[in-house]
Amino acid sequence: MAGFNVHSVLVTGTNQGIGLELIKQFLEKSNPPKWVFATCQDPEGAQELQNLASRHPNLVIVALEVTDPASIKATAARVEEHLKGSGLNLLINNAAIVRPTTLETETLEDMSLVYTTNVTGPLLMSQAFLPLLKKAAQGSSQKGLSCSKAAIVNISSEGGSIQNIAFWHLGQGISYRCSKAALNMLTKCQSLVYGNDGLLSVAVHPGWVQTDMGNSGSLQAPLTVDASVRGILNVLATLSETDNGTFVDWEGKVLPW
Amino acid sequence: MAGFNVHSVLVTGTNQGIGLELIKQFLEKSNPPKWVFATCQDPEGAQELQNLASRHPNLVIVALEVTDPASIKATAARVEEHLKGSGLNLLINNAAIVRPTTLETETLEDMSLVYTTNVTGPLLMSQAFLPLLKKAAQGSSQKGLSCSKAAIVNISSEGGSIQNIAFWHLGQGISYRCSKAALNMLTKCQSLVYGNDGLLSVAVHPGWVQTDMGNSGSLQAPLTVDASVRGILNVLATLSETDNGTFVDWEGKVLPW
Ligand SMILES: NC(=O)c1ccc[n+]([C@@H]2O[C@H](COP(=O)([O-])OP(=O)(O)OC[C@H]3O[C@@H](n4cnc5c(N)ncnc54)[C@H](OP(=O)(O)O)[C@@H]3O)[C@@H](O)[C@H]2O)c1
Ligand SMILES: NC(=O)c1ccc[n+]([C@@H]2O[C@H](COP(=O)([O-])OP(=O)(O)OC[C@H]3O[C@@H](n4cnc5c(N)ncnc54)[C@H](OP(=O)(O)O)[C@@H]3O)[C@@H](O)[C@H]2O)c1
Repeated sequence: MAGFNVHSVLVTGTNQGIGLELIKQFLEKSNPPKWVFATCQDPEGAQELQNLASRHPNLVIVALEVTDPASIKATAARVEEHLKGSGLNLLINNAAIVRPTTLETETLEDMSLVYTTNVTGPLLMSQAFLPLLKKAAQGSSQKGLSCSKAAIVNISSEGGSIQNIAFWHLGQGISYRCSKAALNMLTKCQSLVYGNDGLLSVAVHPGWVQTDMGNSGSLQAPLTVDASVRGILNVLATLSETDNGTFVDWEGKVLPW
Repeated sequence: MAGFNVHSVLVTGTNQGIGLELIKQFLEKSNPPKWVFATCQDPEGAQELQNLASRHPNLVIVALEVTDPASIKATAARVEEHLKGSGLNLLINNAAIVRPTTLETETLEDMSLVYTTNVTGPLLMSQAFLPLLKKAAQGSSQKGLSCSKAAIVNISSEGGSIQNIAFWHLGQGISYRCSKAALNMLTKCQSLVYGNDGLLSVAVHPGWVQTDMGNSGSLQAPLTVDASVRGILNVLATLSETDNGTFVDWEGKVLPW
C-alpha cells in the first residue's frame, strides 16, 4: 500500500455502501490523495459525506446522476476546475443498481434502467474523464500502467461471470447479471483502447458485502464493507500492465468471464 | 440432419440475411417443419418471404418488432392460433442491429437501442413463447434436451466473447459487443432455469457472414449465408443435454465467454 500514491481519485455512488467506504479509506491513508471527489445523487442529503468534508478539506462532494449525460459533463467540468491543470489518476465506477427480477418477471423498463445505470453510466463517465485521465498519465514519470498513474476501475460482480454464475441461490437477477457481463466486456474494450494512452482498466468484484445491495434478501452477506474495501485498495495498489483488462476480486484472484 | 425433426420453428428478423436463409433452408429440408413462422418488421415489404409463402403453405409470415412488448405478445397470440393446441419446438432469436461506434463516439441512445434490440428482445420473446415451448417439451417422447424437442437458440457473435474480442480489426462496436456478452449471459441463465422445463438454450455464433451486417465496412466477409446457415442447422441437429447453456459456432466449436 505504501507504493499506492494517488494524487486524485473520483468515486461514483458514495452516499452509502462500498462507495462511501472507499472515500473513507482514501481519506484515512497515511498518504491521502490531494483531491478526493465523492460523487452522489443528492449531496445535501449525504450526511456522512458532509461530516467527512467538515474534517477533510481535500474531500470534494459533487452531485452526479450517472444515467444523465448532462450531469456527467457538469461533474467533469467541476472536477477539472478543482484540479487546476493537473490530471485525475483514478476513476472508480462504483454506482450501480440491482433488481430482484427473474426470467419470468423481468421487464423492458428494468432491463433498460439497470443497463443504463450499470454499463452506459461507466462508459459515459470514462468518456467525460478521459482528458483528465490522459493528462495524469502524461504527467507521470512512472513506466507501464498502474492505479497510481492513471486507471479506470469498474466495480463489477462475480454474479456477472457467465462461467461462474455466482450467487445464483440469492436470486436470478437477470438484468443485473446481464449488465455486469456487459460491463466486463466494456472493461476489456477500454483496456485495449486506453492502454495505449497510459491508462489501466480493470473490473473488480468486491466480494459479497454487507451493504444495502449485498444484504437484499433473507441471507446476510459474509464480508464487512471495511474488509472488502481494504482488500480492494490492496489489490489496486499491486495492479500493473499485465493486469490490464482483467477481472479480479477483492483478494486479487482472477475471475473467469 | 436426418434426426433433426422440427414440427414448428419461429425465427426473428427474416427479411434478409441469416434469418431469411434460415427460413429457406427449413423449407427446403427433406422433412420440413409443419409450421415455419417467419417474423419481420414489415411483412408487406418482405418480397422474398412473400415469394416463398406463395410456394410453401407451411410458411406463415408474422409482423414483429422485437423492441415492442405489445408486438411480441401479439405475435405469440397469432402463432398460438396457428398451432391449434400443439407447441413450438424451436425459437431462434436472430434479429439484431449493430452500430459502427467506438469508445469515443458511443452514446446513451445507441447503447440503449442496441441493448433493447439484441438482449431485451430475445428475453421478452422467450418469455412470451415459453408456454408454447413448454408444451412442445411436454408433448415430446424424447428423453433429455434437443432442438427437435424444444429449444431457444440465441444468435450471438464471437465479437461478444470477452476472451476473444473477435473482429476487433473490423471496429470497436462497443454497444454491439456489450449486447452480445449480455446475450450470452442471458442464454446461460435461460439454460439454468428452462433446462428443468425440458428446454435447451444455446448461444450460436454464425461465423463472419456475407450479409448487410457482415459486409459493413470495407472488408468482405468470408462465409456465404448459405454455408453459415447449413453449418448452423447441422450443429443444431447434434445438440443435446450436455450442450445446454454453451456458446458454439456454426461449425460446432465451443467458444469461450
Ligand atoms: N454488496 C455486494 O455484495 C456486491 C457484490 C458484488 C458487486 N457489488 C457492486 O459493488 C458496487 C457498490 O455496491 P454497494 O453494495 O455499495 O451498493 P449500495 O449500497 O446499494 O450503493 C450503491 C450506490 O450507488 C448509487 N447509485 C445508484 N444509482 C445511481 C445513479 N443513477 N447515479 C448515481 N449514483 C447512483 C447509490 O446512490 P443512493 O445512495 O443515492 O441510492 C448508492 O450510493 C456496485 O457496483 C455493485 O454492483 C456489490
Ligand atoms: N453477418 C455476420 O457476419 C454476423 C456475425 C456474427 C453474428 N451475427 C448475428 O447474426 C444475426 C443475423 O445477422 P445478419 O448478418 O443476418 O444481419 P442483417 O442482414 O442486418 O439482418 C438482421 C435482421 O434483423 C432484423 N431486425 C433488426 N432490428 C429489428 C427489430 N427491432 N425487430 C425485428 N427485426 C429486426 C432486420 O430487419 P430489416 O430487414 O427490416 O432491417 C433484419 O432482417 C444477428 O444476431 C447478428 O448479430 C452476424
